[in-house]
Amino acid sequence: MDSTSSSFEHRLKDHAGKTEALLKQLLADANLDDEIVRPNRLLSAMRHGVLNGGKRLRPFLVTESAALLGGKADAALRIGAALECVHCYSLVHDDLPAMDDDDLRRGQPTVHIAFDYATAILAGDSLLTYAFDIIAAPETELPADRKMALVLALSRAAGIGGMAGGQALDLAAEKETPDETGITTLQAMKTGALIRFACEAGAIIAGATTDDRKRLRIFGEKIGLAFQLADDLLDLTADAATLGKATGKDAARGKATLVGLHGQEWAETTLAKLVSDAGDLLSGYGNKADVLIETARFVANRKN
Amino acid sequence: MDSTSSSFEHRLKDHAGKTEALLKQLLADANLDDEIVRPNRLLSAMRHGVLNGGKRLRPFLVTESAALLGGKADAALRIGAALECVHCYSLVHDDLPAMDDDDLRRGQPTVHIAFDYATAILAGDSLLTYAFDIIAAPETELPADRKMALVLALSRAAGIGGMAGGQALDLAAEKETPDETGITTLQAMKTGALIRFACEAGAIIAGATTDDRKRLRIFGEKIGLAFQLADDLLDLTADAATLGKATGKDAARGKATLVGLHGQEWAETTLAKLVSDAGDLLSGYGNKADVLIETARFVANRKN
Repeated sequence: MDSTSSSFEHRLKDHAGKTEALLKQLLADANLDDEIVRPNRLLSAMRHGVLNGGKRLRPFLVTESAALLGGKADAALRIGAALECVHCYSLVHDDLPAMDDDDLRRGQPTVHIAFDYATAILAGDSLLTYAFDIIAAPETELPADRKMALVLALSRAAGIGGMAGGQALDLAAEKETPDETGITTLQAMKTGALIRFACEAGAIIAGATTDDRKRLRIFGEKIGLAFQLADDLLDLTADAATLGKATGKDAARGKATLVGLHGQEWAETTLAKLVSDAGDLLSGYGNKADVLIETARFVANRKN
Repeated sequence: MDSTSSSFEHRLKDHAGKTEALLKQLLADANLDDEIVRPNRLLSAMRHGVLNGGKRLRPFLVTESAALLGGKADAALRIGAALECVHCYSLVHDDLPAMDDDDLRRGQPTVHIAFDYATAILAGDSLLTYAFDIIAAPETELPADRKMALVLALSRAAGIGGMAGGQALDLAAEKETPDETGITTLQAMKTGALIRFACEAGAIIAGATTDDRKRLRIFGEKIGLAFQLADDLLDLTADAATLGKATGKDAARGKATLVGLHGQEWAETTLAKLVSDAGDLLSGYGNKADVLIETARFVANRKN
C-alpha cells in the first residue's frame, strides 16, 4: 500500500512537471508569431496565475482517462493545459476583492495583489480565452469533431451552467444559507463540473464509445464529490501550515457545507463509499484502470 | 444616395432585430435541458449586459460577409450572436470600477451598478464562455472543421493578442502616453480585432478560399480602423445626447488618439480613404458586395 501510494505520487508529480513545462511554453514571451503582440505585463500576470506549483490534478485526470481508452498522450497533455488555464482563471477571479477577497494563494500574493485589480480581471479573461485557443490550435493533433466536442463540454463545464454559475451560487450562499440540495448543486457546479470534464475529456480525446464516455463522466462526478468533501473536511481539521491557506474559513464565514450538516464521521464514510463506487465503475477495464482508481483514493485522502 | 442609405439602415435594423431575438432565446430562463441549472440572478445580469439595443454591427458584418461568399444565413446568425456575447462581455468588464469605471451605457445602468461587482465579473466570464458554447453547439449547423477555425480565430481576436491585450494597453496608456505606433497597435487590438473577425468569420462560415478569407480579413481591418477613427471624432465633436454617453472623455482623460495627434481634417480624409480602399478590395465581387461597401461608408460616417 505504501509503495503503491508513493509510486502514485511520483507519477502525479512527474505529470505535473510535464504540464508545468507545457504551460510555461504556451505562456512564454515569444510564443506566437511576430504579428501578434502580447502585452508583457498582462502575460506576466497570466503566468503568475497559472505557474503556481499546483498539483495539476485535472490535467492528470485528462491524461489518465485518455490513456485508459487509448487516446494520444500529446493531445491529452495539451487539453490538460487548456483545462488548467480555465481552472486558474477561476482562481484569479475568485480571489478578487469583489469575490472572496483573498490576498494569498499557495503562500504567494494573488494576481490582483502582485499586479493590480484591472490586470487580474484581464489575466483571468485572457486565460479563459486562451484555453479555447489551445484546444483549437493545429498543434493539438485531434480530429475536428473531437476538438468540437471538447469545446462544447468545456464551455458547458465552465460557464453559467457549471463553474461560473456555481461561484454565483456560492456568493449567494453567504447571504442566504442553502439547504442540502442547494449545497450539493452549488458544489457540483463550482468544483465538480471541471473535474467531471477532465475525465470525460479523456474519453473524447480517445474517440471513445458513448458508453465509455458516460462511464468516465460518472467516474469524474464521483471524484468531484470526493474532492469537495475532502476539501470541506480539511478546512475543518487541517492546520493552515499544512494546507498553505487559511483554515476554518467556512465556519468563520458561516458557510454551509455537507460536513457541517452531517459531521466528520458521515463525511469519512461517504468518502469511502465514493472511492468504492468509483472503483466499481471502472472494474470492467481491469488493471488498466488502477491509476484512475488510485487517483480517486488520493483525492479522498489528500492532506492538502 | 438618401434612399440607398435609408434602405441600408433598414436592413441593418432588421438584422439587429433578428440578432436580438436569437440572443433573447439563447439567454432565456428555460433554454437548456433540465439537468443544467442556470442561476437566475447571473442569467439576468448576462441579459442586462447583452440585450441593450445595440446596433449589432459585428453580427451584421458576419451575416453580410457570409452572404457575399454563399455561407448559410442561419449559421451566420448564430456566429454573430456568439460574437456579440464576446463584445458585450468586454463592455461589462471594461465598465467595472477597476477598469473604466462607467455607471452608464446606452443610458442604462451598467451591470455592476444594476447588480453588483461580483455578479458583473461573473456575467462577463459567463458571456465569454457561452460564446464558445454557441459556436460548438449542434444547433450551429456547420462542418466541425469550420467551427474549429471559428473557435481559433475568435479566441485569438478576443484574447491577449487581441481585444483583452488591447484593453491592457489602453489602461497602460492612461499612465504613459503611447506614440503613434502604440496607439495604432492598441486600437487594432482593442477594437479592430473583433471587427476583423466578424468579416473573416463570414468567409469561414462559407468555406471560402484562402484568398477570399484573406480579402475579407483585410476588409475587416479597414472597417475596424474606420470604426475607431469615427469613434474618436465623435468623442471630439458629438454632443452627449446624440451619443448616449459622455463625450470629450478622451481629452479629459488625457487619452492619446490619432485624431488628437493629427486633427479633425486629417481624420476625415483618412476615413474617406479607408472607405475607398474597402470598396476597391471588394470590387471583384460586383454588385454582391454593395451592402458591405455601404457598411464601410456607414461606419465611417456614423453619428452615434
